[in-house]
Amino acid sequence: MIKALLSALLVLVAVTSTFGKYIPKSGKRIPQTLSRGWGDQLIWGQTYEEALYWSRSRNKPLMVIFHLEDCPHSQALRKVFSEDNEIQKILDEDFIVLNLVYETTDKHLSPDGQYVPRIIFVDPSMTVRADITGRYANRMYAYEPADIKLLLSNMQKAKKLLKSEL
Amino acid sequence: MIKALLSALLVLVAVTSTFGKYIPKSGKRIPQTLSRGWGDQLIWGQTYEEALYWSRSRNKPLMVIFHLEDCPHSQALRKVFSEDNEIQKILDEDFIVLNLVYETTDKHLSPDGQYVPRIIFVDPSMTVRADITGRYANRMYAYEPADIKLLLSNMQKAKKLLKSEL
Repeated sequence: MIKALLSALLVLVAVTSTFGKYIPKSGKRIPQTLSRGWGDQLIWGQTYEEALYWSRSRNKPLMVIFHLEDCPHSQALRKVFSEDNEIQKILDEDFIVLNLVYETTDKHLSPDGQYVPRIIFVDPSMTVRADITGRYANRMYAYEPADIKLLLSNMQKAKKLLKSEL
Repeated sequence: MIKALLSALLVLVAVTSTFGKYIPKSGKRIPQTLSRGWGDQLIWGQTYEEALYWSRSRNKPLMVIFHLEDCPHSQALRKVFSEDNEIQKILDEDFIVLNLVYETTDKHLSPDGQYVPRIIFVDPSMTVRADITGRYANRMYAYEPADIKLLLSNMQKAKKLLKSEL
């Protein structure tokens, strides 16, 4: 009963809030988020240029996640990543975060090739931390859900800045 | 009464949906959207690379909006832009759209300098349409709210592709 009432009210709110606005033929869409499910409470950069700027100016390391929305390995990692409160808290407080579904033109972000999921750390000095790697020799920046603790310890490594006097 | 009930139910939904999830010390945040208020119903590219890819593969012109969230000129243009259903419909059906708050490394996107708001059209052949300009000689790609009809006619120009056989 409460549920039915709630649904009706939510529909009412949705209808009134879109009154007079453009609605696609295929129906109303949910606005896309920058998080893409990797942490709705984090403040995500939109582009690599923006993320580098924030990393430098706030002197925080940058985490870049390359993924694809229809890749099962990306989805599996995203689930444990977004539900790990320790990772989310450290990212929120000590990192700049960026997730991308397209490669950039900067080759430094693909030290051993372009694959997903792939997590690259960048120092505030704008140096890609190619030394911070995962568990797999053939895809050094890949992580599986079981590697989440390794990812956490790599985040601790990334927090020790190359040039802390910056 | 309905309003109070609705508020209570919305709080309930918000509380239950975040149960156990990470919440920043400063309080729960509204997830950031890619539209940034320029059209919540449009499907926005995230990066220039992504937008170029979609433009080429779908053979649709690309509109790139450079703006700043705390710039009053950007805000004024955004208001008329997002509320103009004709513009929103044409963009949704015939264009690829991208809005950026940071400059890219591609100098072709700033033919007469970096300023906001600035609207640049790119052909699916990946050619920047420097010929499609606004009303101001010193800032050729700037538009004011009163220029919205000029913007609309420029969109029609951009729809006539340079190489329509692509």
